Amino acid sequence: MKHLCCFGMLLLAGVLYTTGIAAQRAVSEVPVRIGVLPRGLYNAITDVEGVKVGHKTLISGTAVRTGATVILPHGGNLFQEKVPAAIYVGNGFGKLAGITQVRELGTLESPVILTNTLNVAAGINAGISYTLAQKENREVQSVNVVVGETNDGYLNDIRGRHVTENDIQEALQHAASGKVAQGNVGAGTGTVCFGFKGGIGSASRVLPKASGGYTVGVLVQTNFGGVLEIAGVPVGKELGKYFLKDQLNHPVDGSCMIVVATDAPLDARNLERLAKRAFMGLAKTGGIASNGSGDYVIAFSTNKGLRVTHAPKVPLYATQTLFNDDSSPLFLAAIEATEEAIIHSLFAAATMTGYKDHKVDALPRETVISILKKYNRYQP
Amino acid sequence: MKHLCCFGMLLLAGVLYTTGIAAQRAVSEVPVRIGVLPRGLYNAITDVEGVKVGHKTLISGTAVRTGATVILPHGGNLFQEKVPAAIYVGNGFGKLAGITQVRELGTLESPVILTNTLNVAAGINAGISYTLAQKENREVQSVNVVVGETNDGYLNDIRGRHVTENDIQEALQHAASGKVAQGNVGAGTGTVCFGFKGGIGSASRVLPKASGGYTVGVLVQTNFGGVLEIAGVPVGKELGKYFLKDQLNHPVDGSCMIVVATDAPLDARNLERLAKRAFMGLAKTGGIASNGSGDYVIAFSTNKGLRVTHAPKVPLYATQTLFNDDSSPLFLAAIEATEEAIIHSLFAAATMTGYKDHKVDALPRETVISILKKYNRYQP
Amino acid sequence: MKHLCCFGMLLLAGVLYTTGIAAQRAVSEVPVRIGVLPRGLYNAITDVEGVKVGHKTLISGTAVRTGATVILPHGGNLFQEKVPAAIYVGNGFGKLAGITQVRELGTLESPVILTNTLNVAAGINAGISYTLAQKENREVQSVNVVVGETNDGYLNDIRGRHVTENDIQEALQHAASGKVAQGNVGAGTGTVCFGFKGGIGSASRVLPKASGGYTVGVLVQTNFGGVLEIAGVPVGKELGKYFLKDQLNHPVDGSCMIVVATDAPLDARNLERLAKRAFMGLAKTGGIASNGSGDYVIAFSTNKGLRVTHAPKVPLYATQTLFNDDSSPLFLAAIEATEEAIIHSLFAAATMTGYKDHKVDALPRETVISILKKYNRYQP
Amino acid sequence: MKHLCCFGMLLLAGVLYTTGIAAQRAVSEVPVRIGVLPRGLYNAITDVEGVKVGHKTLISGTAVRTGATVILPHGGNLFQEKVPAAIYVGNGFGKLAGITQVRELGTLESPVILTNTLNVAAGINAGISYTLAQKENREVQSVNVVVGETNDGYLNDIRGRHVTENDIQEALQHAASGKVAQGNVGAGTGTVCFGFKGGIGSASRVLPKASGGYTVGVLVQTNFGGVLEIAGVPVGKELGKYFLKDQLNHPVDGSCMIVVATDAPLDARNLERLAKRAFMGLAKTGGIASNGSGDYVIAFSTNKGLRVTHAPKVPLYATQTLFNDDSSPLFLAAIEATEEAIIHSLFAAATMTGYKDHKVDALPRETVISILKKYNRYQP
Repeated sequence: MKHLCCFGMLLLAGVLYTTGIAAQRAVSEVPVRIGVLPRGLYNAITDVEGVKVGHKTLISGTAVRTGATVILPHGGNLFQEKVPAAIYVGNGFGKLAGITQVRELGTLESPVILTNTLNVAAGINAGISYTLAQKENREVQSVNVVVGETNDGYLNDIRGRHVTENDIQEALQHAASGKVAQGNVGAGTGTVCFGFKGGIGSASRVLPKASGGYTVGVLVQTNFGGVLEIAGVPVGKELGKYFLKDQLNHPVDGSCMIVVATDAPLDARNLERLAKRAFMGLAKTGGIASNGSGDYVIAFSTNKGLRVTHAPKVPLYATQTLFNDDSSPLFLAAIEATEEAIIHSLFAAATMTGYKDHKVDALPRETVISILKKYNRYQP
Repeated sequence: MKHLCCFGMLLLAGVLYTTGIAAQRAVSEVPVRIGVLPRGLYNAITDVEGVKVGHKTLISGTAVRTGATVILPHGGNLFQEKVPAAIYVGNGFGKLAGITQVRELGTLESPVILTNTLNVAAGINAGISYTLAQKENREVQSVNVVVGETNDGYLNDIRGRHVTENDIQEALQHAASGKVAQGNVGAGTGTVCFGFKGGIGSASRVLPKASGGYTVGVLVQTNFGGVLEIAGVPVGKELGKYFLKDQLNHPVDGSCMIVVATDAPLDARNLERLAKRAFMGLAKTGGIASNGSGDYVIAFSTNKGLRVTHAPKVPLYATQTLFNDDSSPLFLAAIEATEEAIIHSLFAAATMTGYKDHKVDALPRETVISILKKYNRYQP
Repeated sequence: MKHLCCFGMLLLAGVLYTTGIAAQRAVSEVPVRIGVLPRGLYNAITDVEGVKVGHKTLISGTAVRTGATVILPHGGNLFQEKVPAAIYVGNGFGKLAGITQVRELGTLESPVILTNTLNVAAGINAGISYTLAQKENREVQSVNVVVGETNDGYLNDIRGRHVTENDIQEALQHAASGKVAQGNVGAGTGTVCFGFKGGIGSASRVLPKASGGYTVGVLVQTNFGGVLEIAGVPVGKELGKYFLKDQLNHPVDGSCMIVVATDAPLDARNLERLAKRAFMGLAKTGGIASNGSGDYVIAFSTNKGLRVTHAPKVPLYATQTLFNDDSSPLFLAAIEATEEAIIHSLFAAATMTGYKDHKVDALPRETVISILKKYNRYQP
Repeated sequence: MKHLCCFGMLLLAGVLYTTGIAAQRAVSEVPVRIGVLPRGLYNAITDVEGVKVGHKTLISGTAVRTGATVILPHGGNLFQEKVPAAIYVGNGFGKLAGITQVRELGTLESPVILTNTLNVAAGINAGISYTLAQKENREVQSVNVVVGETNDGYLNDIRGRHVTENDIQEALQHAASGKVAQGNVGAGTGTVCFGFKGGIGSASRVLPKASGGYTVGVLVQTNFGGVLEIAGVPVGKELGKYFLKDQLNHPVDGSCMIVVATDAPLDARNLERLAKRAFMGLAKTGGIASNGSGDYVIAFSTNKGLRVTHAPKVPLYATQTLFNDDSSPLFLAAIEATEEAIIHSLFAAATMTGYKDHKVDALPRETVISILKKYNRYQP
């Protein structure tokens, strides 16, 4: 009951902070099973305790189709209580901000903010304002904000740079745990994936108790191409829509932002390894990390024992982390959750018309189901 | 006719330099089609003009099940005419030699040598001897030899370090173009992949003329695990043999060496990007790059216009290379060829018994065919 | 008299684009010689043909002490005619934007913009606006802007984020070749170096004809610490002002941005190597790249034969680049020019009082000269 | 008295395992002071408790001038009790073995072995044999051996590959704590540095108690060039022997191996940062990391609380490590100890004649002293 109630409230929140049109479909209807590990309760990044997600969707007029999505590793002061983190670059054709400090220090001290390519600066400013405004941070003069992006310029008037710092502040303020709105929302509002409407997707996996019982949650912003496969089924080929079809060099570029959260006690080094595996999940959907695709994975651990206090009162950082040898089950979980999150983004997104009357169709659900049936993978 | 004749001669060579038992099956019988791009003539790394492959297979007594495989980018003096090259580390639990110089200078100046984990030194020595012995190299005092390895210690008495410098010299001397022996040969003699007998595999792809018509060839030494998929079909799950089956942490470690050759004019930077895509092909087979898996990709270009002369007589290095934008079709080719090469290694390998009476079964061909049929992917 | 006259001229230039006070001293008076290679005409980054530098200095009230400095590799459309580039991270405690795309593609397609830590977003926005506004770029939807920063929060009200996009646009519009204003100007207005007033510095070296005759120019924004040495003379120790003095852990953090330009035909890989050597020049001044120091080097080649056209009309990128073997003289030049540029920033900067009445003294010129004399290194 | 006795015993050991001629001079006679931090007892890497060093010097006939030096992080079973470690590549023109696994797993599980370029394989084999032979390792099938090298081919018949596995085993067996033999010993027997005889050097620094009181010890194998400075004094220029002298492109290549040990509780990430600072110490001697120089830094922590047990009996790795903020004093220590170790190698080495009658003079001690006096830096 409690959870059901929660869902209702979240749905309400979704209405308030998602602009206007029916942009999402229920992910629970995704008619296929991916991988061998069990899903978490919401099958979303929020299954990792404490993680919150917020969206701000901007749809207005004929040309604004964009937004922002934020992910908070925990509900406290992120600057004062940093989390171990890593960033992996699958293909660096992108403008992601914040990478070098995460790599050097092994910590994340801001929300992760996703938006469009030309609004990264709005994301940085929003993250700085968010941090400076927290009362414990009144002396803070430096904060590293991680902002990822993909290019929604086909459906969105991207040169207009319509996402404002205020928009992102709203997403931050209304970030919540629980169910995650997916499809044409937030930073995924105007994205395109495998030639179909992409968007935000999320999924999670829970390890067996014998492997620690940890949760890995993933959120993606999908805007890339290749030769689509759904649970290994050659959907792109069957639909006749894929890179190099008819031996022609169709456009394939775009990007994918992947955010991976886990409660497993992984230090920065092993989080980078985990991030790398998420990219393997992208590969399984048929993505090729084309030249023009900015593909990044941001991974962090929410494990409370690993928080890095900004001004520690103890001389040494005492932690308990997983041995390298115990990381493999988490690797599998990251691969599966990423693959599934990408597929979710496709099933959740709706057909959209936008900038210059460009129209991008949603994945043709019924046809895809028939293809899944043809290959005996239909599992509703 | 001409080609048939060639095959016969190669087979003969195979008999001479492959120890005794029937280790390979015909790859042409692989009952599945992977990807969307056409294959080269031999569907092997040797489809890239000039590339030669040599094996030395060591099977003796009850415990020696190992060997070496060498790949030569061209038939000339590799030290005097270096090729552009890059190495990507998928997961660095491995002893690969030669990486830092390839990365710093962007060139490969030796054959690529693959063997077992504890015989890397034999590989280095063989590569040095090979180089020092060439008459143009009589003043050479430094050569960077690239040696990759996987651990065949389950089937092979690896602590015995049975591969000698001479064995590798033999593989170098008899390296040839044309058909590539696969399965339980050379460095793949004693390897295990997804719980089945692995080995050497190879495949290739040819780009459409509109994309340059270039060839990408791949050779793999497979010794890793995960949740096997063949052309997206969940074969590992159907066979009940996969990582975390029954929620138990089954051994999954091992390694995969991937060698990628292309005649496309790619400089070292774009070759590193190509190498990264090969790793995406590994992901598509269900590999997870487990903690203990040393997964590396070595990529080089055979393009004659890009040779780096050791002691150049001209002041500047004049080249014509692909623009970044034109690399995406090659990326797809590398993904497909790698995925297929790995599958080839499984279909080509035969059941083997070795060290301590350990036995590893070949992939159960008939059962797998029935699984492929179940999922409508059987394409003989 | 001659020098005094020079001051006047600089001041004049300074008046136009530098706010208010006399911030610089003449670098030509630097009383020491560094290295063995000859300097260029201006002994500045602008000795590399085509390179332009612009400053916007913000000094107002008691608390605003900041600004921006921009470096343009050439006077044309940087997006349409990109230059080969690389970025090296000496110590990644910093918010530099644009690194991953430079690394992935090997090109720089925007001006390099330097400012303070919390105004990186203004830099990105300015760079985007600058690019989108160029008429050939009217279809551009994606541009990677490189923005570096150091933290001037001791002298400047950094939380006020006083640098605006307009400020940076001004710096871009007035960027010029020729003599470079140094010291308390632009992005160096409020910085601190080795406990003294730091700022912008620049220097250059010219290779012997036998080594190609190329020029290497460097511009730095100095805001870091350690144990100051000037031409190897232990100035910090003599002045009793250095890290760990009296065995106490004095603050040492801060950052250093280093921009390296050359007309030598270096590709991105060799530019990264060149960038790494610039960091060695920082080491020679006694910098230690302390934990909190964001030390980055951005290197690019202005060589016209290496321009990367955005939408090329030819199928292949034809270039002539230096062989690896010929890069060592350039390495020495980058080391010397960086060391000297840092020393210039110290000699050029004037004492400043700012935020919260914090005061930072200029390097005590006369005392330093007497120290240089003590160690027989005084060379006016 | 006790220490004197110890010295005597070490000298004895030196006689036994150092071939024939008087190769070393006393480092205590180095007539200059470098840096601001105090030295450890032996002013050597062995000041870090538990670290042992062993040499095998090979001088025979007219052409064999080579050897091996080994460094053991502790006296126990290194494979069973691994230490946190990192490797930084200053310039990757080298054949160092073992880097990728150290980077992936963050641990060192073998001795560090230094030798000549063409004997890396002997080093790997010796490290494997050493590991396999330890009784607790009887099931071990995989070990990552770290072997560094420089090219001593000017004085040594390097193509003869004279260092054998047995030679290195000897160095391992006789490795000892206490005073470290320097100059023409072990892996430094035939090396050349700044045009003078190089060799093995070592030095150490001890942090103030307020900074933790930790020790940083460094050992170098010097074989590189540039423009020599000793404590900032332009010795190379004064002696007229430096890179680009008379505007000519004199040979400058060679390499430098740097091994850094500390008892500070640094994890692999911060050890990599420490390693990077050691390279800054090399810069301060006037080294330029020329194209052909293979410059590497291997850093490890001997801190007992950070040992990584091979087959742990506890579920999590419990550690106490330094916060990032506390690493800066260690950075300074690594810079100073490296600079001094390199200078030690020059002062300790004696003139040598070898291969093809090539002769390399020792640093002219008396002349250098007079130069130091000229610049007021003579401090005996």
